[in-house]
Amino acid sequence: MTKPLLIEIDHVAIAVNDLDAAITYYEDTFGAKVTHREVVQRDGVEEALIAVAESYIQLVSPINEESPVAKFLEKKGEGLHHVGYRVEDCAAALEAVRAGGGRPIDEVPRPGSRGTTVAFVHPKGSFGTLIELVQEG
Amino acid sequence: MTKPLLIEIDHVAIAVNDLDAAITYYEDTFGAKVTHREVVQRDGVEEALIAVAESYIQLVSPINEESPVAKFLEKKGEGLHHVGYRVEDCAAALEAVRAGGGRPIDEVPRPGSRGTTVAFVHPKGSFGTLIELVQEG
Repeated sequence: MTKPLLIEIDHVAIAVNDLDAAITYYEDTFGAKVTHREVVQRDGVEEALIAVAESYIQLVSPINEESPVAKFLEKKGEGLHHVGYRVEDCAAALEAVRAGGGRPIDEVPRPGSRGTTVAFVHPKGSFGTLIELVQEG
Repeated sequence: MTKPLLIEIDHVAIAVNDLDAAITYYEDTFGAKVTHREVVQRDGVEEALIAVAESYIQLVSPINEESPVAKFLEKKGEGLHHVGYRVEDCAAALEAVRAGGGRPIDEVPRPGSRGTTVAFVHPKGSFGTLIELVQEG
């Protein structure tokens, strides 16, 4: 019996063309509140986090054409981009993915937004879902 | 200031071709546990819920070719299908969507799985994301 590694849905990431317009929709319709906003140069995106209990809705827009999110939007249009699961230990979770036949995109954990440590797992090998493993701090 | 309507990420729904194979991946790799499994005739699907804190990963497979999930799989392949947000009052949240310019798919709330009351909101009008509003009980 493996110890449960996923301790929280950290976030659902939603790729949008116009970050401000999407924020306005969630604010006006659902009374949601953006609690964090950040440009993540490494990933070529700007993101806005809406807190929902212990999880986030992560609205994400590309800031340049090389961004993977720009390519996603071009190919698939706006919508669900990936799901982030909170884990205690990102390196250990990544090792579990590797052992389970999953396909890490990041070979080792790296810095994510809001001071997290993260690693992405390829949709191929995870039933079509791009997964982000998120360790706080 | 609108009252916050989204009180929890109820679930992320992931469309898969082979429900048992997907369950095995989450169990073996992440030590996850299926806490509920149900055939939802109305939606033409079988779903398996994996509890993650107060949320669920909902793995979902079609049980017939008329299922919207069958059409999704044919068109887009496996992957993130929709996101369910838990709300106190599904009818009130649906009204807020309507007032905010969103596009309800269900005109009135209806029964969902595990005894919930739900309504779906069309991706057009919600920045490409199929949203399910989920009221417990």
